[in-house]
Amino acid sequence: MSAPEIDRILQTGLGFWASKTLLSAIEMEVFTELARHPQDLETLTGRLGLHPRSSRDFLDALVALGFLERRDGKYSNTVSTDFFLDKHKPSYVGGMLEMANHRLYRFWNNLTPALRTGLPQNEVAEGGRDLFATIYADPQRLKEFLRAMSAISHGANAAIASRFPWANYKTVADVGTAQGDLLVQVALANPHLSGTGFDLPEVAPIFEDYVEAQGLSSRVVFRPGSFFTDPLPRTDVIMMGHVLHDWNLETKRMLIGKAFEALPLGGALIVYEAMIDDDRSQNAFGLLMSLNMLIETPGGFDYTGADCQSWMADAGFRETRVEHLIGPDSMVVGIK
Amino acid sequence: MSAPEIDRILQTGLGFWASKTLLSAIEMEVFTELARHPQDLETLTGRLGLHPRSSRDFLDALVALGFLERRDGKYSNTVSTDFFLDKHKPSYVGGMLEMANHRLYRFWNNLTPALRTGLPQNEVAEGGRDLFATIYADPQRLKEFLRAMSAISHGANAAIASRFPWANYKTVADVGTAQGDLLVQVALANPHLSGTGFDLPEVAPIFEDYVEAQGLSSRVVFRPGSFFTDPLPRTDVIMMGHVLHDWNLETKRMLIGKAFEALPLGGALIVYEAMIDDDRSQNAFGLLMSLNMLIETPGGFDYTGADCQSWMADAGFRETRVEHLIGPDSMVVGIK
Repeated sequence: MSAPEIDRILQTGLGFWASKTLLSAIEMEVFTELARHPQDLETLTGRLGLHPRSSRDFLDALVALGFLERRDGKYSNTVSTDFFLDKHKPSYVGGMLEMANHRLYRFWNNLTPALRTGLPQNEVAEGGRDLFATIYADPQRLKEFLRAMSAISHGANAAIASRFPWANYKTVADVGTAQGDLLVQVALANPHLSGTGFDLPEVAPIFEDYVEAQGLSSRVVFRPGSFFTDPLPRTDVIMMGHVLHDWNLETKRMLIGKAFEALPLGGALIVYEAMIDDDRSQNAFGLLMSLNMLIETPGGFDYTGADCQSWMADAGFRETRVEHLIGPDSMVVGIK
Repeated sequence: MSAPEIDRILQTGLGFWASKTLLSAIEMEVFTELARHPQDLETLTGRLGLHPRSSRDFLDALVALGFLERRDGKYSNTVSTDFFLDKHKPSYVGGMLEMANHRLYRFWNNLTPALRTGLPQNEVAEGGRDLFATIYADPQRLKEFLRAMSAISHGANAAIASRFPWANYKTVADVGTAQGDLLVQVALANPHLSGTGFDLPEVAPIFEDYVEAQGLSSRVVFRPGSFFTDPLPRTDVIMMGHVLHDWNLETKRMLIGKAFEALPLGGALIVYEAMIDDDRSQNAFGLLMSLNMLIETPGGFDYTGADCQSWMADAGFRETRVEHLIGPDSMVVGIK
């Protein structure tokens, strides 16, 4: 029996300090500013509009947390923050963290009532529109949000593009495609494939801009629709990334059933997500993501690979498998 | 040059998820309940008043984060959470984290305006009383807060008790003593010493109960006073733990000066704190604590060992040194 240790308890319990420090740095565009060139304390304090009382502590905290470097009194980005947190780079993931800063941080303050009632704690609880209505209402915010989603899922998208046996198939649809990065990566790595992005009509211009910029407009097209009211595209492979976790069990099963109907015999459904490990004891990110679905949605939850396999089997898929992709993400493949 | 990595950015940016999950678990007394005996999901959901929608995700997230264990479907505390987070044990540190949950989490949502204005964002910003008036107003909350402070600083207190050359001194005072654990540890390890706890009068009963429970009432006494208006006790050694960081530079220097006046020639001042490393690039906790002083106080800030040594030298101390204690804490010793 090991000795009791307090460090991890305090570090996690006060972990919102480090979290909010990074989120405020993104909000104040520290990394975008430093992507221009390294700057000393005084210059940076002025450029960022910081008050001198705590600007040095703030920037040095970012150094100690590993998000900035400081050499000879000049602050600069790390390789990672320069790539992912400079607003002017296509690899910027800050949009998602901006949303975490503006919305989720304060909604999570109500985690206890959420756990006691099972009810969401976002704009809906405040009498506002639901999550997707909020995001889709403003075209500029929608574009930033979808771009951030692409940046965050890019690694997993590339893994699916290279690891799935695409040679066996000719057509693929991505349901809830957003900006379309998954389809773009799959199409770039597999020149014989044609793809269809399926999402709400508001997404069309954002998807089409992105696909055109990748030179894929001839092979990758958008099809507007709602997966609640419309049938899914009839393709050899159907993909759903970070979609099922938004919904309750009934809707999850309905969507898997719709995919089954749309696929030909031998066709494949790929579901991918921050999948919880089957023992539900390792993938903390997947479990916390599920609590985020409690905060954000009326019935959404994350799930294990085994859960998804059983829903696929119930829908009629004759063969299923789980494959780890990258970080917390795994995919479940079902063959009709 | 290494490849850009997104994991640490997302893990920290969304770190408030894990943080708030632990804080809600403390608020709902998960660990106090499980200290009674291990329990299965259904029993625990009922006992804690959780809604079934997310109770399993919540408890399994605590497993994946390393704060609970689950065996054969029964949840139990880890050695560390049983020791530090069971409300019925004297080693409970949850009081401090309860305060973080009730107060600091939401005040830190205003970190950006704090950094732009240099102004605190706690009850004061909401038109309420200042930090200490709030804490001292309710005797029960004050007791819990001071008990939590003891539990958190216990390791550093024990290090000071064993490492400082106490054989050279006969009397010691602890300024801002709170419950008095530092003095208690020092007195227990050094039977030749007599000690004086100095703090506001409201603290007296809490201090005296604690000292009496340790059987030290004959050697360790309380002296009520304010370090703003009263002189400090005239003892061979004066200690100030987690005190100076609450105040601005002028008050820091004033307190060090008062200690210098009160000490005899050869006497020692011990200042201890989550001291920032001299390069201000390693001790993230100390730097974040300084941002917490921005949120909580009009002028407080944390500082390096070298900063404190220079203030001591300016006050007249002829010899100073910094010694690491435990975790993020170090002490600075000044000899008159």
